[in-house]
Amino acid sequence: MIKGALFVVTAPSGAGKTTICDAVISRIGRLRYSISATTRPPRKGEKDGKDYFFLSREEFEKGIGEDRFLEHAEVYDNYYGTPKEFIFEQLRAGYDIILDIDVQGALALKKRKLPAVYLFIVPPSLEELKNRLVKRGTDNEEVIARRFAQARSEMGFISRYDYCIINDRLEEAVEDMLAVIRAERCRVERLKEEIARISG
Amino acid sequence: MIKGALFVVTAPSGAGKTTICDAVISRIGRLRYSISATTRPPRKGEKDGKDYFFLSREEFEKGIGEDRFLEHAEVYDNYYGTPKEFIFEQLRAGYDIILDIDVQGALALKKRKLPAVYLFIVPPSLEELKNRLVKRGTDNEEVIARRFAQARSEMGFISRYDYCIINDRLEEAVEDMLAVIRAERCRVERLKEEIARISG
Repeated sequence: MIKGALFVVTAPSGAGKTTICDAVISRIGRLRYSISATTRPPRKGEKDGKDYFFLSREEFEKGIGEDRFLEHAEVYDNYYGTPKEFIFEQLRAGYDIILDIDVQGALALKKRKLPAVYLFIVPPSLEELKNRLVKRGTDNEEVIARRFAQARSEMGFISRYDYCIINDRLEEAVEDMLAVIRAERCRVERLKEEIARISG
Repeated sequence: MIKGALFVVTAPSGAGKTTICDAVISRIGRLRYSISATTRPPRKGEKDGKDYFFLSREEFEKGIGEDRFLEHAEVYDNYYGTPKEFIFEQLRAGYDIILDIDVQGALALKKRKLPAVYLFIVPPSLEELKNRLVKRGTDNEEVIARRFAQARSEMGFISRYDYCIINDRLEEAVEDMLAVIRAERCRVERLKEEIARISG
């Protein structure tokens, strides 16, 4: 039986997704990140089975053939995908999973009718998003312009999601996401066993 | 436009509903109780428009004829009902409303397809419920037995609700209900205006 809940989280670059999700995971139990599979080589310090499952192109394509990914995509000649087995193992063990994924990936999951909770994290305004992208100083003007245009177009899909977390003040956004996870754990359909025990 | 959310809350007698809801209201803003209408005479200290809307039998029946109640019932020769106008006024003003109602009332609302969030509060076990009913010392054995039987039969309807709050430790139950309300406020369909502003 699947006990855990799958939280699919999307956010435009600069919305603060990683900061929020890290804070949420540190403050609530039974919650973990999903681990993606990829064919790109490990970067320095990255560990197989922790940061990614690093697969050869052959292994990855075999996995696609065997329908072992919830979704996958090819980006700049490398495959990225979400391994089913890892997620379902964790969910069966009672862990909730955060699956950090872009709009295309999330829509692919929805198409498969995967029972999941879909969250979209947004900045308080597009202007603030631009400020944040400029401030963090990691990207040149062209990249910033591209990320900004992408953010704008991604945000057109929010209505396909269940929840929207507006990251105006970080602490409030973290509380919002914690509330969503806590509330989802109170859903009647997730408490069937407990309810049967109580009513028995 | 309806901005607030309606939280329909049901619990068997002794589950701790009032304690939980009072605590929740004291700890979160923009949340109020619904006020019922009734034909029973005011008890000492009860105020019209605060504890109840006290109506004559004639007024109440006129209200029924004009479809001015979300639901109503006759109990021991007195009418009790949920006035639409008060609730929709509050929701339009941006307040969330807690509507404390029994299973029959909640099912009547569901039948009307009223967009609401349905919560059921339960004790950690039926045994504990019995203990609590005995402990509070307000009812005789026969009343306790009746309440207990009713609780048991009411709990058969939990699956019709959205959320189940298990009141094992009070503080946890309060946090659960606060989370449900906070999460519902993050629902995409409730944030349409904000999202349009941000994406604009």
